[in-house]
Order: sequence, then structure tokens, then C-alpha cells
Amino acid sequence: MKREELTEKILDIKREKGWSWKYITEEIGGMSEVLIVGALLGQMKLVKPLAEKAAALFGLTENEKRMLNEVPYRGTGTPMPPTDPLIYRFYEMVMVNGPAWKALIEEEFGDGIMSAIDFNIEFEREPNPKGDRVKIGMSGKFLPYKYYGNEQGIPDYGFKEV
Amino acid sequence: MKREELTEKILDIKREKGWSWKYITEEIGGMSEVLIVGALLGQMKLVKPLAEKAAALFGLTENEKRMLNEVPYRGTGTPMPPTDPLIYRFYEMVMVNGPAWKALIEEEFGDGIMSAIDFNIEFEREPNPKGDRVKIGMSGKFLPYKYYGNEQGIPDYGFKEV
Amino acid sequence: MKREELTEKILDIKREKGWSWKYITEEIGGMSEVLIVGALLGQMKLVKPLAEKAAALFGLTENEKRMLNEVPYRGTGTPMPPTDPLIYRFYEMVMVNGPAWKALIEEEFGDGIMSAIDFNIEFEREPNPKGDRVKIGMSGKFLPYKYYGNEQGIPDYGFKEV
Amino acid sequence: MKREELTEKILDIKREKGWSWKYITEEIGGMSEVLIVGALLGQMKLVKPLAEKAAALFGLTENEKRMLNEVPYRGTGTPMPPTDPLIYRFYEMVMVNGPAWKALIEEEFGDGIMSAIDFNIEFEREPNPKGDRVKIGMSGKFLPYKYYGNEQGIPDYGFKEV
Amino acid sequence: MKREELTEKILDIKREKGWSWKYITEEIGGMSEVLIVGALLGQMKLVKPLAEKAAALFGLTENEKRMLNEVPYRGTGTPMPPTDPLIYRFYEMVMVNGPAWKALIEEEFGDGIMSAIDFNIEFEREPNPKGDRVKIGMSGKFLPYKYYGNEQGIPDYGFKEV
Amino acid sequence: MKREELTEKILDIKREKGWSWKYITEEIGGMSEVLIVGALLGQMKLVKPLAEKAAALFGLTENEKRMLNEVPYRGTGTPMPPTDPLIYRFYEMVMVNGPAWKALIEEEFGDGIMSAIDFNIEFEREPNPKGDRVKIGMSGKFLPYKYYGNEQGIPDYGFKEV
Amino acid sequence: MKREELTEKILDIKREKGWSWKYITEEIGGMSEVLIVGALLGQMKLVKPLAEKAAALFGLTENEKRMLNEVPYRGTGTPMPPTDPLIYRFYEMVMVNGPAWKALIEEEFGDGIMSAIDFNIEFEREPNPKGDRVKIGMSGKFLPYKYYGNEQGIPDYGFKEV
Amino acid sequence: MKREELTEKILDIKREKGWSWKYITEEIGGMSEVLIVGALLGQMKLVKPLAEKAAALFGLTENEKRMLNEVPYRGTGTPMPPTDPLIYRFYEMVMVNGPAWKALIEEEFGDGIMSAIDFNIEFEREPNPKGDRVKIGMSGKFLPYKYYGNEQGIPDYGFKEV
Amino acid sequence: MKREELTEKILDIKREKGWSWKYITEEIGGMSEVLIVGALLGQMKLVKPLAEKAAALFGLTENEKRMLNEVPYRGTGTPMPPTDPLIYRFYEMVMVNGPAWKALIEEEFGDGIMSAIDFNIEFEREPNPKGDRVKIGMSGKFLPYKYYGNEQGIPDYGFKEV
Amino acid sequence: MKREELTEKILDIKREKGWSWKYITEEIGGMSEVLIVGALLGQMKLVKPLAEKAAALFGLTENEKRMLNEVPYRGTGTPMPPTDPLIYRFYEMVMVNGPAWKALIEEEFGDGIMSAIDFNIEFEREPNPKGDRVKIGMSGKFLPYKYYGNEQGIPDYGFKEV
Repeated sequence: MKREELTEKILDIKREKGWSWKYITEEIGGMSEVLIVGALLGQMKLVKPLAEKAAALFGLTENEKRMLNEVPYRGTGTPMPPTDPLIYRFYEMVMVNGPAWKALIEEEFGDGIMSAIDFNIEFEREPNPKGDRVKIGMSGKFLPYKYYGNEQGIPDYGFKEV
Repeated sequence: MKREELTEKILDIKREKGWSWKYITEEIGGMSEVLIVGALLGQMKLVKPLAEKAAALFGLTENEKRMLNEVPYRGTGTPMPPTDPLIYRFYEMVMVNGPAWKALIEEEFGDGIMSAIDFNIEFEREPNPKGDRVKIGMSGKFLPYKYYGNEQGIPDYGFKEV
Repeated sequence: MKREELTEKILDIKREKGWSWKYITEEIGGMSEVLIVGALLGQMKLVKPLAEKAAALFGLTENEKRMLNEVPYRGTGTPMPPTDPLIYRFYEMVMVNGPAWKALIEEEFGDGIMSAIDFNIEFEREPNPKGDRVKIGMSGKFLPYKYYGNEQGIPDYGFKEV
Repeated sequence: MKREELTEKILDIKREKGWSWKYITEEIGGMSEVLIVGALLGQMKLVKPLAEKAAALFGLTENEKRMLNEVPYRGTGTPMPPTDPLIYRFYEMVMVNGPAWKALIEEEFGDGIMSAIDFNIEFEREPNPKGDRVKIGMSGKFLPYKYYGNEQGIPDYGFKEV
Repeated sequence: MKREELTEKILDIKREKGWSWKYITEEIGGMSEVLIVGALLGQMKLVKPLAEKAAALFGLTENEKRMLNEVPYRGTGTPMPPTDPLIYRFYEMVMVNGPAWKALIEEEFGDGIMSAIDFNIEFEREPNPKGDRVKIGMSGKFLPYKYYGNEQGIPDYGFKEV
Repeated sequence: MKREELTEKILDIKREKGWSWKYITEEIGGMSEVLIVGALLGQMKLVKPLAEKAAALFGLTENEKRMLNEVPYRGTGTPMPPTDPLIYRFYEMVMVNGPAWKALIEEEFGDGIMSAIDFNIEFEREPNPKGDRVKIGMSGKFLPYKYYGNEQGIPDYGFKEV
Repeated sequence: MKREELTEKILDIKREKGWSWKYITEEIGGMSEVLIVGALLGQMKLVKPLAEKAAALFGLTENEKRMLNEVPYRGTGTPMPPTDPLIYRFYEMVMVNGPAWKALIEEEFGDGIMSAIDFNIEFEREPNPKGDRVKIGMSGKFLPYKYYGNEQGIPDYGFKEV
Repeated sequence: MKREELTEKILDIKREKGWSWKYITEEIGGMSEVLIVGALLGQMKLVKPLAEKAAALFGLTENEKRMLNEVPYRGTGTPMPPTDPLIYRFYEMVMVNGPAWKALIEEEFGDGIMSAIDFNIEFEREPNPKGDRVKIGMSGKFLPYKYYGNEQGIPDYGFKEV
Repeated sequence: MKREELTEKILDIKREKGWSWKYITEEIGGMSEVLIVGALLGQMKLVKPLAEKAAALFGLTENEKRMLNEVPYRGTGTPMPPTDPLIYRFYEMVMVNGPAWKALIEEEFGDGIMSAIDFNIEFEREPNPKGDRVKIGMSGKFLPYKYYGNEQGIPDYGFKEV
Repeated sequence: MKREELTEKILDIKREKGWSWKYITEEIGGMSEVLIVGALLGQMKLVKPLAEKAAALFGLTENEKRMLNEVPYRGTGTPMPPTDPLIYRFYEMVMVNGPAWKALIEEEFGDGIMSAIDFNIEFEREPNPKGDRVKIGMSGKFLPYKYYGNEQGIPDYGFKEV
């Protein structure tokens, strides 16, 4: 059994039942809906108690339930560059604005990255008379580059900056 | 003169003066810092009054000033996939989570996209005892797919959903 | 069930019945034929009443009908660059003329894009003694780049232009 | 001398003079503005009388004038997929709608293509209270696939179609 | 049913019967053998009377016969660059000699292309004591680039040429 | 000195003098014009006496003359897939028709290839009331796959074929 | 039936019987083992008498036997760059040493190539106290570039060389 | 000034002086040699005191010194896949063994990654009579995937495992 | 039967039994767990006695057992660049640090590579109050580039180095 | 200074002097000509005494001499796939025959590779009345995959093989 076959089965059942993701994520609960949907689409893992609930909801076999609890091979849900317009727009944001984001984050936080592992994302509808907006709140842990061999702690101070 | 030569010149001056982006964006003002830095890195346009201020600050020629006012060929600041870890992490978020974002946005808003043109992004430092976090606030206009020929307005109602 | 399996089934029935797209789109109605054909080929969504009509016409199952109502993962109908000559010619137009289109649209409309979401396209046969022509009428909403932080409205006026 | 160096020189002069494309194309005249701009951006050829006018306007050398009269190596003005959002949207239209366009054009015209060589395109601003629109009129010659060996003219008639 | 499945079935029958392409193309007749073989390999369309004959020859179903009459999604028969040496050699000819062909065709014919839609190709064995040769005769319609807006017909005359 | 710099110099002189390729190839002579133009564009080699003539014609230095006599790194004159429409059409012919060509050549000649090294190509204008045509005559040596270890000469005879 | 399915079947039988390639190639005989193994892996053709022997050995059907006699679409046995280390090392040799090989072969033989069609390769174990070595003997026909139009035979003599 | 120009200058000086990396890293000190060499090759940042020492050693300008203190656009030092054999071997290890590493790390640590930001690497020569070995010690922080919305801490316990 | 089908079967059984890799590798034994897991995932070979044990454990058929003993086509377990974050981080390390590793290994060992064939890797959990770490110990044989024709042993000594 | 600039300089001098590679490699001596030419083309390293001789021959500067003694970033001399026909033919051999070579080498030597680091290659002209041949003799060390954890030496014996 492959993870994408499980995803296909889950989508077939969702379609048949006429369930929304909102209904499904509330039934399973216990984690942000982005993560639960991600797991059902084969990109995330469900911890055991949630895998149990998902299996009960969708009437999955024992082995399918266990597969939901496995860490999938991530990044298989969309080709890159994404051909789907909705996902492409996010890709474009990164491509066009990436250099500016890098400059500003590094100036504020120093050398490092924002984690793509320890981050949270939430979507919200922002009503707007000119057309509603998608409001996104993200928060990711900043991980500073570690300078090994610098245990004595030479700091990054010296020549002036404005 | 190419836009990337102007970018290189601006970075040389920034380095020589020891200016931070914070200083530069405050001096120029009038627009979010992501957009001003984006323009100075050759990915965005500065409206004329801001181009004047930027030219005065960096001591640019008349022609360089006018170039800052032009719409650049966007998306040239980073190869895709990005090789730089900071930018790659954003790319990875889109690749891994894109399918779930698509599912949830479409369920909430219907068929369409979040605009990559009419959107705002703001970075903030979120202090955290386990390590500070990068907090990102984004808001993009939702653009529904237009179904032409459907002017009489056949709505998307009918078979049941939970 | 995958969307491409549904597409294959629909094409099998179309072939068996000897139906033209004209016949099919008239039977389903309610939307431009480009969009209906796009949906039957797995690149667009049919709103519920049209999905009902399509399902009745093709004798689809309940689940297949619902799938027609789902937003598909768009952009999967042709590899890029397109190997098929008919589609490639459009690709070539964009590649060869893109820079000129960009220059002219930006000069007329300012910084922004023509929407690929809110646009209409219509094909028509243009009789011509030297060989009939494909006449295409397109109209897409212009979406100006939003300059956040520029709420006070600094306009793009200043140094002269001819 | 490379064509892209000539393009760069022309853009430098345009910027310095503060000329719009409208002004330039009116000065040169004699051909659609898409083609003149395309030539100045290195993707099209100017016939000799227009090359003379362009050379006079921009103060080009004899050799630069002659280069404008040469057929360039086309398709070098934008990487594919285009990273610039304005051009990308056209690319996306082809990718998402290409299969439907193919189906409809072939049904109407038979086996063949719309020429990317003998086609005209015109842009127009379409005022609209919800936001102005880019109106595009295109017309391309339909070129039927030639079936050699079929000189006796076996037509494509036979089994029925609706 | 997919076109490549039909191709596979046709090749199975050809193999089983021990038929040569020569035999097959003579049986079907009415079009050049390159086109008939191309259609049976899924890259070309057969007009209805030829599809009838092909169906009779291979014992195809009604639906398979109709599929032969459809315009396929062309260009799917070989990956590019071609890995097969026979096809690669043609690819290499284009890659190595393309620039010279372009220079010579444009000098003789002006700005335009040789059509890949209205062209004929014939293979012949050319006996040669040093090893027989493949003799190829091609003829394609020259399609001049149309310069719209140049209806008054400004010709490409002016500065001298040798 | 790089070969492409020599090509650029030669094209500059050609442009300045207003020479056609016809004039140039007649002046140099001694080889087909496709090969001479190919060499001047950096994709072929000129034998010494022709390099002498080319050097005299263009006023090249001793070292530039010698470079014309070197075998260049071929295949650098056009990116693949070719973005220029004229060259792309040839590429498309190979992509769309390659499988049929392979089938027919192998049936006639057996297992092997048409040489891309020992082949000749000639272009000719074919007047035609419906629009002139590019007539191409090609002839390439057929090279049979050698089956080593088969010195005793087991022939490819046996089970029947029609 | 696809050639790769036949390859899979042959490998299944080989595995089941516990046969070595040595045993198989000796049983079939009549051609170098590289070619026989290549054919069984779907990259080469077996002449009819050898196809008979292979079919008898593996118990193949009539149609499978005939498929072994067909020229396959070559180059499908390994993705490029090869991910398998054994094959990659050969790829690397070409990539790293290709320019030197080109320089030396051209100096010795003149302008041309070593045929990849008429060449033989043999592997041998070379015992060595520091670790046995793979000894490879290759011999390929040199094919000189033909300079058409040079029938009068202008030789490549003239300016001096050391 | 671009970072790669600074790298080139540093390598020129290193070559001229005949300095080894060992000498250079000892002179600069204060950080692991992998990081210092990485910074001098344009892939890492030197904190200000080390940038001062590097600038003094190499006789750099003020602006070059400051550039060493900037976070570079990482990942530009080697194309991927790496063409150089030494670096390719590491790439191959990841490609061939990646799936096994993933399986074992996830079993031991749970869902997450080994940081490429907070990791240390040390090389050592391991004498060995059969040929010395490169001994590598790496240690990277494990970063568990954060399951947001799971603040109440649903653990990953439940169905049995051996 | 394809190797990836065997891998899928093994993973199905592992999931069904609830076995950990630790349990499986201990049951099979006789080789490092990285290699055993690699073989079960289709990237490595198991010697016959271990294939026997694996077959007994998983209840494999005779042919499946023999397949485990075959050298697979390696490198098929992960696309490159890896989309899975855990494997990508290793890829990134190579991309960002490759040039520095190359410089340091070559300075210490001379011209050559670290073998990707004769190397060992071991993972260990390194407890750390700030978050446990993945500790990796690798050791690979250094293979010096052989300079053939240099049998008389010209050493790499001469001009000075610091 | 970049290695490719040194290569360009060396080729300029070679051309100016009219030296053959044979002359150059004999003058420098002490290593196989493939390696010396490879070094002068920027893909190999010359040991110091040979770098001295090469520098004397070409009149190089001290720094250029030292650069010849550095290990270059290999694999930069040809794009892959190679566009030059001479090098492409070797690439094709690997692509078409790779699977058969893998099968035969592994059967003879076991699991492992032929080294691309410790291998020798020699070219020779093989006179042949049907056209001279390029004779290549290669010999590369076989490197067996090391199975760590298998120190007790479980051999690969067991189930029968023919």
C-alpha cells in the first residue's frame, strides 16, 4: 500500500459522504486543521490517538490507520513550480520577495533561518468591502547559525553601523 | 545599465556607509520596508517621490533614479529552488503544506486564489524564552475564479455537504 | 478515483456517442464553453447545477458528479513546454512577445498584472479569403500592485515624461 | 556587438529622455506598437525605413541601425517559466486552458494550429467600475495540417457525429 | 482508453501478424506512409475513411476506430532530448546546424519560418558503394512574419547590401 | 579569445560591410554554404585554405584565422529546446515525427542510424502560387549497428514477415 | 505488451532459475555478451536465430520472441545522470575527461567522431595484488565529418604546426 | 562588488603567498576551520573580530572586510548535482542512503529533522594500513516537528509496536 | 516483479506486525542497520545468509528472497533535490559546505575523493539539555587520483607553501 | 584569476605557436597525455615539477603556474548532456549500454564499482581498410561495496546459481 493510495481512498470517502474539511478536522480534533488536512493528504503524521479517530471516522483498516501514524515522504503533494494557481501564488511570493525577507530577517535576528519545522500557520477570513481577504498568521522559531569553534563566544561587534 | 548593476551599487554604498536597512527605509519612508528593500534589491518599483529620496540618500545619477521608478523584471533575485537556507525554508513550507492550504482556502472562500499582487506582509520579533520567533502577518485579497457565461448567476448550491 | 480517470471516462463516452463539444456544452449550458470543456478535461470546476446536468448527460455516478464540482489541481493537462503544436504556438507567443506586452501594459495601466483568474476568452472563426483566422477576444481585470505602507497615498508623479 | 547590448543602450536613452513607449512608437510609426517595442527589446525586426527612423530618434550608429533590421534570435527576452508575474499570468493561461483551447479550435477548424507567425494582437483599456480591464484582441491565421499523399482529397467524412 | 493503449494494441497485432509497415500503409493507403505510421503510433490523425480501413485491418472496436480519427496530443512519442540514437541524430542536426539554417533561410526568404504543419517528407534509399544512404526530401511552406500595422506596406528596402 | 567572440566580430564586419551570406560564401567558396556559414557562426571547422580566404575577406588576425581552422565545441549556437521559432519548427518535426521516421528507416535499412556526421543538406526555394516553399534535400549515410561476436554472420532471417 | 514488461519477465525467470548471465549468454551464443544482455534488458535487438534461442531458453511466447527481434527505443534503461554508482562512474569519466578526449582524438584523426554504433566493448578481469581491476577494451570506427561542396578535395594543409 | 569577486581575490592572494588553509585558519582562529574556509569561499559569515583578522591577513579594503561580515547568499559554491567527484560522492551518499537514514532517525527521534543550521562537522585523518581514511564527526540538533493545536499534549502512544 | 514492489510488500508487513526497524535489524543481524534497512528499502544488497533470514522473517517467496540478494539499481529511493525535509537538510549541507570540505580534504590528503562505496556511517543519540542531537560518525576510505604515465613517481614537491 | 581564464590563455598561446598537443605533452612529459591535456583544459592537476615545465613552456606567471598545481573544480569542461557530437557519443554509450555493463561487471566482480579515480585510459589508432578505428584501452580498479557490521565475514554463499 502506498500513501497516495490511502489519500485517494480518504478523498473518495470524503466526497461520498459530502463531508467538509471543517467537519473532518473537528471530528478528529487535537491538532491544527492545517496539520490534520496535511496528514490526510499524505504530507504529515497523525499521532496515534488522532490516527485512531481518523480511522474510526473513515472506516479504515488497521494497516491504513498505522500508515496515518507514519512520517510520510513529505513534499510529494505538489510539483515544483506548482502548476496550480492557488499554490503558485505562494511560490511567487517567495521568489519575488525572498531576497527582501532575507535581508530584513537577518538584520533583525542575525545569521540564521526561520524554522520550517517548528512553525505555526493560521488562516482567517478578513471581511473587506473591496473583497474579503485571506489573513495568514505565521510564527516560526528563529534558528541561529551555530559557529562551532567559537565556544569562547567571540561576539559580532566591532565596526560601526547605523 | 542593468538593474542588477544598480542593485550592486546600492549595496556597495550601504556597506561603505555602514547603514542598516532600518536606517535606509526610515530615511526613504512612505511605504512598507519589505517593498522599499525589495525595490533597492531590484524586485519592486519605487514611486517617483520615493525614488527621489532614495537617489538623494545614495547619491544616484538621474538615470539611476529613474530606473528605481521602473517596474523591474521581477523574480530575478533568487534561483528556484532557492539554494540559500533562509529562503529555502519558505519554499519548503509551500511545497509541503501547499495542498493543505489549497484545500482549506478553497473550502472557506470558494474557487480562487489569494492574490500575490494585492497582499501585505509584516515581520515582527516574537520574544520567546525557548528562542525568539519570527512572527509574520500576511493578508492577501481573495480573487474568485470568474465563470464567464454564468452572468445569470447560477450559484454553487445543490447536493448536500456536511 | 483520480480526476484524470474521470476525464478519461468522459472522453470515452463522448467518443462512443459521437458527441461534439458544441453539443455537450449546449446541453450543459450556463457557462462559457471554454470553462465547461476545461472542467470536463479536469482543469476547472463546475458549479453544482451544471455538475448535475453533466452527470445526467454522461450517466456519471454520484461520486463522479461531486468530483466535477471540486476545484481540481489545475495545470495538469499539458506538460510545459507543450509538446503539442497547437498549444505550443500560444506558449511561443508569450515567450517571444512577453517583454513587449509587459512594457505596454505597464505603461498604460501602471505596475500590476492582468488577472489569469478574472478573465474571459472567446474564440470565433474569422472568414478570410487567404485562409480563415482564429479570432480571440480576451479581457482580464487589471490588478495593480499594492504598495502597503503607502496608505497616505504618495502618487507616482514627479520627474517629467514624454 | 550583441543584440542585448543594443537593447540596453536603447533603454538607457529612453530613460534619460523620459520618453514613453507611446511617444517612441508614434515617432517611428508604420507598424503596430507591439512589434516596434518588440524590435527595440530585441525580439523582432524593423524593416529598413523604420530602422532608419528608430536610428535617427535614438541617435544610433550605422551598425546599430542595421542590427535593428536583422531578424534576432527570438525568445531571449524572458526565461521560461517566466519569473515576472505579469508575463507568468499569460503562461498560466496557456497551461491551465491549453487543453480546452485545443479541443475547441480543432472542433471548429479541424486538425491544425493557429499561427504564431501570422497573427495580430492589440491591447486596449476597458474601463470598468470594478476596476479597469485589459482587453486583448488577437487574430491568427488557422493553418491546417497538410496530409501529403492525400492529393486525391479523401475527406474527413464518414461515421456520424452530433 | 488512452491513445498510447491503442498504439500498444496496434503494435501487438502488427507483431503477431508479422506485418511490415509497408504492408500496413499499402493496405490503408490514401496518405503518405509517414503520416499513416505517425497516426498508428499516436502522433497523427487519420481521416474517417482511412480510420475505417485501419480499423478493418486491425480488427479494432468502434471506439478505437474513432480515436484514430481524433487529433492526438502530439509530441508524446519521444522524450526530448531523444535517448534513442536514430532520433537523436536528427535532434543533433538541428542543434548543430540550426543557426546556419536560420541565417540562410532568412536571407533567401526574409523574416519567417518554414512551416512544421504544412510540410512533406519522403525517405528513399540511395544506393551507394560506400554504404547506402538515407535520402530525405522535405518541402515546407514558408510563412512570413506578418507585420501588423504595416498595411500601407512599407517595404524592407533602403540601405545597401551586397 | 573565445570562439563566440570571433563569431561576434565576424557578424559585426558582415553588418558593417552590408555583405550577404551569399556574397561571403561565394567569396570563400570550396564547401557547401551551410558548412561555411556554420563555421563562421562557430559550429564548424574551415580547412586551412578556406580559413585563409575567410581571414583575408574579414581582415582577421593570424590567431583568429587559426581558430577558424579548429574544430569548435559544437552545439552551442542554440539553446534546446530552441526559443527561436524558425529553429523550433525543425525541433518539433523531430519530436512529433521521430517515432514514425524511426519505424520506417529501420524497416527499410535494418537496425542503425542515419549519420549526422556524414550527411549533406541543401536548401532551395520552391516557387508555389500558394506561397513559396522551402525545399530541403538531405542525404545521410546509413550506419548499421554492429553486432560484435557475430563474425560468423548469423543473418536476421527466420520467422515470416509480410 | 511493452518491452519493459518483457524485460521484467525475463529477469523473473532468470531469478527463479538461478541462472547467471554467463550461462544465459553461452546458451544463446552468437553475439558478444554485452549485446545479448543489452537485448534482454530491452536496449538491443536480437537477430531472428538468436531470438529463437532466447525464446526457447526462457519459454517465451511467439509474440515475445518477435519483440526481442525488434529494435527497441534505446536509452530507456537508465535515467541521466545515472543515480546508480556503477553507471555514474562512467558518466563522470565522460564529463571530466570529455574535453581532453576530444582534443586528442581530433588531433590524431581530424574532425569527426568515434562511432557509438559501430563499436565493440569487452570487459575482462585484470588480477592485481592491490585489488583486481576492470579492464575494458573498446574499439569504435572513426567517422570523419563530411565537408560537402568540397568534392574537389581541398585538403586541410597550409599554415604550419608543430 | 560581488561576493564571488572577493572570493576570487582571496584565492589569488592565498596562491601568491603559498599559504595553506591550515595557516590561514590558524591566523584567523576563533571558529572551526570548516566555517572560516566556508566564509572565505563566500558561503558563510565571519563575525566582526574575525573579519578584522582576515582583512588584516589578506590586506583587504574596508568594504571587503565588511562584506566578509555579511551573510552571503548561500549555496552558490557548487552546482547541483555537483560535477566535481569529491563533492559528488557526498551527494551520492545522501541520494543512495537518504531513505535509510530517514527511517532510522525518525524511529529513534520521532518526527523531525537534523538541523543543517545548528550542526558541527570535523574532519580527521584516520591512518589505516589499507589506505588512510577520512573520518568525519558530525553532530546536529534534532528539531521535532511541532504539532500546533496539540498544546494539550496528546502523546504518540497507543497501538503496539515491537 | 520490481524491486519497489518488494519494498512495498516489506513495508506492509512491517506495518501490520508493528515491528520497529530495531527489531527487524536485530532479527536479521550480521551487518550495520543502515545497510539492512537500505536493502529492505531497495537500495542495497543482502548477502545470501542475510537474505535467507530476511525472507524467513517476512515470509517472502523464493524469488523475493533472491531479489534481496541482487544489487539493485541504486539511487531510486529519493528524488533529487529531496523534497522531504529530513533528507533535504543533508543535501543542503553538501551544497553549502561542499566547497569548504573539498578545500580541506584536498589539503590534508591530496588530490582524490572520499569513497562513497567503502564508507561506514553510524547514528547515535547525543543527549543534550538544549535538545538532543543526532551524532553521526562516518569514515570513508580516501582514494587518491591516479596519475598514469607517472610510474617513475614524480612527486608533488617544489615551490614553497606555508 | 579563474581557471577558465588560464585555460583560455593556454589555448591562445598554443594557437599562436601552432603547437600540437603531442608536442606539448612531450615537452611537459611525466604523465599520460590525457591527464596533461586535462590539466591544461582545467580539469586535472599537474604535480609541481610538471607545473614548472608547463609554466616554462607557455611563459606563465608564478601565480598561473601555481594554479596548474591546484585541484580544479572538475566537470566544468562540458555541459551534460554534451552538445558536441564527439563527446555525446561516449555519453550515449553509457546511456544505452550502462545497464548491460552493470549486469556483467556485478556478476564478475560482485557488488561494487569500477573506480573513476584510479583508472587509466589510452587511445590508439587502429588501422582498418574500412576506415580507421579509435582503439581505447581502459583499466579501472574495482571497488567492492563495504558491508560494515559484517566484520565476522558472512560470505555471499547459499542458494544455488548456474
